[in-house]
Amino acid sequence: MVDFTVFKGSKGGKIVKSHTKRELGHDEVLIKVTHSGVCGTDQHYKEADMVLGHEGAGVVEEVGSAVKTFKKGDSAGWGYQHSSCGHCKQCLTGHETLCPERAMYGSSDLDQGSFGSHAIWKADYIFKIPDSIPREYAAPLMCGGATVFNVLRSFGAKPTDRIGIIGVGGLGHLAIQFAAKMGSEVVVFSTTDSKKEEAAKLGATEFVATKGVSELQVSGKIDHLLVTTSQQPDWKQFLPIMAPGGAIYPLTVSNDDLSIPYMPIIVGELKIQGSLVAARQVHRDMLAFAAHHQIKPIIEQFPMTCEGIEESMQKLDDGKMRYRAVLIAQ
Amino acid sequence: MVDFTVFKGSKGGKIVKSHTKRELGHDEVLIKVTHSGVCGTDQHYKEADMVLGHEGAGVVEEVGSAVKTFKKGDSAGWGYQHSSCGHCKQCLTGHETLCPERAMYGSSDLDQGSFGSHAIWKADYIFKIPDSIPREYAAPLMCGGATVFNVLRSFGAKPTDRIGIIGVGGLGHLAIQFAAKMGSEVVVFSTTDSKKEEAAKLGATEFVATKGVSELQVSGKIDHLLVTTSQQPDWKQFLPIMAPGGAIYPLTVSNDDLSIPYMPIIVGELKIQGSLVAARQVHRDMLAFAAHHQIKPIIEQFPMTCEGIEESMQKLDDGKMRYRAVLIAQ
Repeated sequence: MVDFTVFKGSKGGKIVKSHTKRELGHDEVLIKVTHSGVCGTDQHYKEADMVLGHEGAGVVEEVGSAVKTFKKGDSAGWGYQHSSCGHCKQCLTGHETLCPERAMYGSSDLDQGSFGSHAIWKADYIFKIPDSIPREYAAPLMCGGATVFNVLRSFGAKPTDRIGIIGVGGLGHLAIQFAAKMGSEVVVFSTTDSKKEEAAKLGATEFVATKGVSELQVSGKIDHLLVTTSQQPDWKQFLPIMAPGGAIYPLTVSNDDLSIPYMPIIVGELKIQGSLVAARQVHRDMLAFAAHHQIKPIIEQFPMTCEGIEESMQKLDDGKMRYRAVLIAQ
Repeated sequence: MVDFTVFKGSKGGKIVKSHTKRELGHDEVLIKVTHSGVCGTDQHYKEADMVLGHEGAGVVEEVGSAVKTFKKGDSAGWGYQHSSCGHCKQCLTGHETLCPERAMYGSSDLDQGSFGSHAIWKADYIFKIPDSIPREYAAPLMCGGATVFNVLRSFGAKPTDRIGIIGVGGLGHLAIQFAAKMGSEVVVFSTTDSKKEEAAKLGATEFVATKGVSELQVSGKIDHLLVTTSQQPDWKQFLPIMAPGGAIYPLTVSNDDLSIPYMPIIVGELKIQGSLVAARQVHRDMLAFAAHHQIKPIIEQFPMTCEGIEESMQKLDDGKMRYRAVLIAQ
């Protein structure tokens, strides 16, 4: 039985230090957490009685008897998904993120997460971190990076397509880098000009400030539009700049309905494509691609303590994070 | 100069008989209209000062000097699109229906249509009607048939996928036939049970009456859902029966926004795919497929006169058409 420290949400949003006991299963791996990213989704659960964190990175400390793919000392990370059934149509076709029995952050394994000293996960659902990616940079790739990479990799975007990215934050600043390294022209939309220079450094070829603008001006229409903002955008503003047959990927978590002009979707044969998180092979491709191109998040470091977590979440909430918080194990 | 009779819309919705004069261009074909389908889109224009009709079928009477692909006496039909630029990205990739310079019914060539004695069209935008399809059955394929076939053929539907079709009307009753002949299980959704038997004869494997039902019961989830009703459905009713990664194709013409629950689209990775009309090669494939499988619309015949047109439109408006009106040249 392994006993480890964890950090949980609580009524009112205070972070609480607690303990978990788990037995290491034959197909599982015990990871000593060294780093964790802080994602908007953690914010959504900060009042829940559960351990937070799903952008984990650490070192393998022990492996179960049946595990052949990891060994003690390996650098490993994990993200949103903990397991799936392994038998259904989705699992058999590389879409295990859509398995009806998927175990995901926020609804299963509430007793452990990446905000903690250790975690125990199924070996088949964790990822080797390439040696060339320091773990503090690998952590935010585990959800934020994988999420935007999945959009660019899984729904037909081509290097010759023009990629639009709304929002320069934890997801957006990684999407810019991935899309640029895939060879695409990248058009970034942000409320004001404040992130213009940084977007260009990350690989943006064009930057459009959107606040108060009734007709967006772009040098060419957008084939794939990733919406990475924390709120749904003003859809009316963006439909006129979509290329014929273009695709829109809303990644925002929102409790509102999707309400969007209807006829432009029909006459332009636009597509609205939901996308959740990356399946495992896509996640692996993402890590290899990030390593090959030295794609790294821009991070701000906080201590993995109750205070450090709260401080990082407050900064994220205030819209002041540049661009991803990473907690460092103490 | 060719002088021919046409039937136009007018303020108040009365159908008006009129005349058009056109010169036959070198790349054009003069068609003597024998039949025309009556589509919901004609209804939308019945108060416009334009010639109606875009599901035309007839016999080639004369060809322009440069036309090599048609000859006098050929059976020919045409649909929604009259021309495109031929040079843009969309035109070069088989997506000429999305050409920025596309000429379409309702916005160009308002002086002629399929409600008339003759019409002159570019040879490259009309279609040979296979000998095995009588023209009264070919006419409704030119828009209604092509529209639903395009959805089934162009966006990744597979014979092993389960196809859902909302609405048994001009489009829906053809979609059922195409999907069934493509090998798919076809689940039909209609307000009441009144069309259940007919749907089964057309190839439906399952029929679901939707009126007043809070939780739709299906034997398996739907991979591709075609919405062929004249109004947008209650989206909340249909999202729970969509398969993971499933696609929704709204074909309804609607001036309302699309307003649909948001998070189910993300967590199920659903796709909302706009689709307009078939590009020419898809249209040709449709005619060949219909001929091969003897797919025919179920039609009601009306004389091509002001009274006949008005009567057919009234019946369509009343929701009593079973299932497509065809006007017969007098």
